[in-house]
Amino acid sequence: MEHNLDYTIALLACTPATLDALLRDLPDAWVLSNEGERSWNAFDIIGHLIHGEKTDWMPRARMILEFGESRTFEPFDRLAQERDSAGKSLSQLLDEYARFRAANLDDLRAMKLSDDDLRKGGVHPVFGSVTLYQLLATWAAHDLTHLHQISRVMAHQYRDAVGPWTKFLGVMQCAGHSS
Amino acid sequence: MEHNLDYTIALLACTPATLDALLRDLPDAWVLSNEGERSWNAFDIIGHLIHGEKTDWMPRARMILEFGESRTFEPFDRLAQERDSAGKSLSQLLDEYARFRAANLDDLRAMKLSDDDLRKGGVHPVFGSVTLYQLLATWAAHDLTHLHQISRVMAHQYRDAVGPWTKFLGVMQCAGHSS
Repeated sequence: MEHNLDYTIALLACTPATLDALLRDLPDAWVLSNEGERSWNAFDIIGHLIHGEKTDWMPRARMILEFGESRTFEPFDRLAQERDSAGKSLSQLLDEYARFRAANLDDLRAMKLSDDDLRKGGVHPVFGSVTLYQLLATWAAHDLTHLHQISRVMAHQYRDAVGPWTKFLGVMQCAGHSS
Repeated sequence: MEHNLDYTIALLACTPATLDALLRDLPDAWVLSNEGERSWNAFDIIGHLIHGEKTDWMPRARMILEFGESRTFEPFDRLAQERDSAGKSLSQLLDEYARFRAANLDDLRAMKLSDDDLRKGGVHPVFGSVTLYQLLATWAAHDLTHLHQISRVMAHQYRDAVGPWTKFLGVMQCAGHSS
């Protein structure tokens, strides 16, 4: 399929309601169980998505527009949610995520980005030159990688329960490349 | 996590609204693009889920309760959606899926299954003896395997768009074990 900014925004707009529909009414056991050791559960993942809304995508987009390749993005803190989500309920996190995402999309639409803007470059701390277009596409794909992860983490809880069906369920074969 | 019938029903109740929130408002390009050749797109997958509601899960549950291991389940037609979804819109399919699922869950709750019922066995055409408990757990895990698949199929569309971020996105490494 072709890809463009409208498609990216359309997907970004759907994710909070998707995760809300999936998680809000589930028993805690579904939401708080992980894949063992220090792997993430669905609650952790929503916290991680909120942190991205606050510190990653739009701040980096603004940095590209303002400073181009003369400044390197701040590294993303992949463990921030352990601190930020402490004491909150899943419902609070889902509300917070939806609120930040809606505000960010309002800001993104208000930027009225041109094709020239989208071709502007920035510097990622690990892999160097990227474009604003790639950053925004990654924002959407990052939603999908965590939806993929949540479905895998939840399916893992039923690995024994499904008995011989395990080998017919692709998600049970997924080795966790989406950490 | 422990697993039980209440957890299974809770998850089964969330899936139609989850897929509705994800897909209903997206441009067709997201919904109709696949992973190449005869692989499934999101539209195909919703059709497949509907066929399961009609012919797989509850008919097999009733067969176990009525006939136990004296009858083998009908094989599931994995291509039925090509016929059944023809000429329908995604919105129609999402409505149909939600309607069948809600009716099936009403029926399932009305069965008031006991632990003895859940231990009853049936015969799968490929791998033989299964229990009613395993069948119902698989119904829920099957939702998750297709949510996992849809997120992968959609992310695939942005494989080029994300540029160097590809290697940081787990979903882009998923080789498609969830066919």
